[in-house]
Amino acid sequence: MATTNLEKFLEYVENNQEHYVQRLREAVAIPSVSSDAAYREHVFKMGEYLGKLCESLGISYEARDVGTQELDGKTLQLPPIILGTYGNDPNKPTILVYGHYDVQPALLEDGWSSDPWVLTEDSSGRLMGRGATDDKGPVLTWFNIIEAHQKLGLELPVNLKMCFEGMEESGSEGLDELIQQEADKYFKGVDAVCISDNYWLGITKPCLTYGLRGISYFKLTVSGPGKDLHSGVFGGTVYEPMTDLTYLMGKLVKPDGTLLVPGIYDNVAALTEEEKAIYGKIDFKMHELHAAVESDTSIYSSESETLMYRWRYPSLSLHGIEGAFSAPGAKTVIPAKVHGKFSIRSVPNMDPERITELVTKYLNDEFAKLGTKNKMTVECIHGAKPWVSNPDHWNYVAAAKATETVFNVKPDLTREGGSIPVTLTFQDALNTNVLLLPVGRGDDGAHSINEKLDKSNLVSGTKLLGAYLYEVAAIERK
Amino acid sequence: MATTNLEKFLEYVENNQEHYVQRLREAVAIPSVSSDAAYREHVFKMGEYLGKLCESLGISYEARDVGTQELDGKTLQLPPIILGTYGNDPNKPTILVYGHYDVQPALLEDGWSSDPWVLTEDSSGRLMGRGATDDKGPVLTWFNIIEAHQKLGLELPVNLKMCFEGMEESGSEGLDELIQQEADKYFKGVDAVCISDNYWLGITKPCLTYGLRGISYFKLTVSGPGKDLHSGVFGGTVYEPMTDLTYLMGKLVKPDGTLLVPGIYDNVAALTEEEKAIYGKIDFKMHELHAAVESDTSIYSSESETLMYRWRYPSLSLHGIEGAFSAPGAKTVIPAKVHGKFSIRSVPNMDPERITELVTKYLNDEFAKLGTKNKMTVECIHGAKPWVSNPDHWNYVAAAKATETVFNVKPDLTREGGSIPVTLTFQDALNTNVLLLPVGRGDDGAHSINEKLDKSNLVSGTKLLGAYLYEVAAIERK
Repeated sequence: MATTNLEKFLEYVENNQEHYVQRLREAVAIPSVSSDAAYREHVFKMGEYLGKLCESLGISYEARDVGTQELDGKTLQLPPIILGTYGNDPNKPTILVYGHYDVQPALLEDGWSSDPWVLTEDSSGRLMGRGATDDKGPVLTWFNIIEAHQKLGLELPVNLKMCFEGMEESGSEGLDELIQQEADKYFKGVDAVCISDNYWLGITKPCLTYGLRGISYFKLTVSGPGKDLHSGVFGGTVYEPMTDLTYLMGKLVKPDGTLLVPGIYDNVAALTEEEKAIYGKIDFKMHELHAAVESDTSIYSSESETLMYRWRYPSLSLHGIEGAFSAPGAKTVIPAKVHGKFSIRSVPNMDPERITELVTKYLNDEFAKLGTKNKMTVECIHGAKPWVSNPDHWNYVAAAKATETVFNVKPDLTREGGSIPVTLTFQDALNTNVLLLPVGRGDDGAHSINEKLDKSNLVSGTKLLGAYLYEVAAIERK
Repeated sequence: MATTNLEKFLEYVENNQEHYVQRLREAVAIPSVSSDAAYREHVFKMGEYLGKLCESLGISYEARDVGTQELDGKTLQLPPIILGTYGNDPNKPTILVYGHYDVQPALLEDGWSSDPWVLTEDSSGRLMGRGATDDKGPVLTWFNIIEAHQKLGLELPVNLKMCFEGMEESGSEGLDELIQQEADKYFKGVDAVCISDNYWLGITKPCLTYGLRGISYFKLTVSGPGKDLHSGVFGGTVYEPMTDLTYLMGKLVKPDGTLLVPGIYDNVAALTEEEKAIYGKIDFKMHELHAAVESDTSIYSSESETLMYRWRYPSLSLHGIEGAFSAPGAKTVIPAKVHGKFSIRSVPNMDPERITELVTKYLNDEFAKLGTKNKMTVECIHGAKPWVSNPDHWNYVAAAKATETVFNVKPDLTREGGSIPVTLTFQDALNTNVLLLPVGRGDDGAHSINEKLDKSNLVSGTKLLGAYLYEVAAIERK
């Protein structure tokens, strides 16, 4: 029988599962795709949906206008950032939670097994629908927690601040500026940040995430002729940009993943024994990687190495070439101007500016050796710093305790190979600890067809994030 | 005052220019685009237009049905090949003329300065319209010649056989089979072939063309993961197909155009002093190349070398990659399966099968060195042999004399860097000499926007091809 407030809360959540499913169904039904101008009105509707939830639960909120953007040749109003405040007790810690209410595009004809905008539960309890796990399910969790406490007549153990944006899938336009502006205003007094917008490493073991790789995305351009040429007429007589570009791209990374840019590894943090020990404990098997990539073409045979090369060592991927022939069939073109796209996933303590310097110098040096008359330029078109946090911070310890309470298991300490730039922005602007505490599983397929959130994760995630607030309130914070 | 039949013919042509422009205008108005199923009916209309011309001029003809093709998911009737016969005098030589009545696609919005389907004459006498020079203008020339003789009450000095196809811009489907089938039937007794479907090297000097490069077009496929992956999650842990493919493509050709496939030069015919002498005489300047490619990024500084590397040495062009990220912007994808497209322009005495062998062996050897777990395949998806003829053959000598008659200048002896596969088919199937005798200029822009044929070329071309028939009839043929 439930006696403590936490126990009452957990019991209440257990008994109201269908209510949470129904709420998620309402949210998924709004196709809030931020990358497509034609869907922009739905992103606004989703913002209004959250506003109404705030009103119904007595959360004071503001739908902050962050200006306009240019998209598909139109000037579009950016969806508002929802800033909500629940509780203002100086004796309680203040936790800022972040999430996003926009989603990736989705079309039934992409191969979904059911309408992506109708949350559909299958016989295994998977709730399928665009945004179910990324990030509507986790966002609604916070409202579920407040509602449960109101229904139970309980106080929330913390003050909660909310920051929910509608542009995360499209570059988070307007967010960084708002965080900087409001650091000493709206965000003043925040003790820690909790973001639930990533996933368990696998499908059974919960985790806390304390690191992200950064990214430096490059566009390498080689140009020569003033227009595309016919290879029959000009092949053999002019320097071809594709020849130079392909050669340069082939000089960036070895098949085994080793970066070939001189000096690029100089600032990679050394592996400590302490960190090394973490990898051995993580619940991860090679067959899970093979299942995820649908092949056994992994570079490393051990789990530890695989995770280290995903999380704490840099990688370089060649994404493709813009301006060359890319359609099926055979076209005998000499492309006049080609742009190679590649990116480096960076890790502590690599710095984006230094990465750009090294890459630019190396490519210029290699290009000079070619003896071509073509022209080359290289630019970093997008950069984000890597991030790593201290998993011994009270924010993490509280989350670990909450995990044990809900799942009866110690969470894995994971990092992510990708980047969530807002993490670093919050950490630096608010000078506070940021925790990534996922709700969904590693196989949720966030950006794929048939995105899903398991009903059990929706329920356990609501319990986990609620329990986390209790632990944060109880723990010694220093 | 015109006294000989040839002189009367030349004078008649000179006095009927506007009539020829009008005929070309009617033909250009029919958008006979063979590559697009939506335009197929117009290709048929263009075939009917030629059929009516045959009827009106007493040319016995057949519109030969050559079956169907699959295009854009539909089964389409192939446009007929027009086989015409004019004259059957055993005392005259029989000349087979080939051309095509289909055209490349064209849309005003591609950047045309006038409607591509309305022949438009500018102040410099350029007749602009899709198909004007490729190949409706040259095809109509043969009808103009017959008509002129009828109006003048003159006999044509030769028997003429015509073969006009409607699929040249789309792989000449059905043509080779027809030529093989009819070699001893319809095409029996042909003494020589004349094809007018290429261009002068420059814009002032007429030429005879006696050689073409062949082509071997390759598709190099590397695959690994079962689906496209996110580089944040998997970068650094799996073998990436783009890394392997880029490396292999970078091993094919040097920036200066040298092919790196071992053995590929073994069968390239040695340059004789006789052939070398031809290059020195050709009217071609480097600034013409630079104007054509709109840059000065030529590999060779001399005209002779440039022409040799266009016509008589092989080249290798990297066209692009299918399956990788090719759009503007930044996408952090690890493509699962990528297809590199490249082609080798081959020259006498290179053989397509040997080329495929050498390329396949080399790429397999290089791939084995990579130590990757990805899979690689290479296939030649299109091959055509190179062709070179003897410019001392009577067919060429007759054409040279006709050129002197009409232009008062000896023609340049040129080759082409591209391929016109039907040339070799006619030569081999009919065991006869084939001459390429162009009507248009080097700047006609056959496959580009604003394709044009100068009115002066339409007129001089009609004269030239007519005079050629007189010279063929007069020359000692052995």
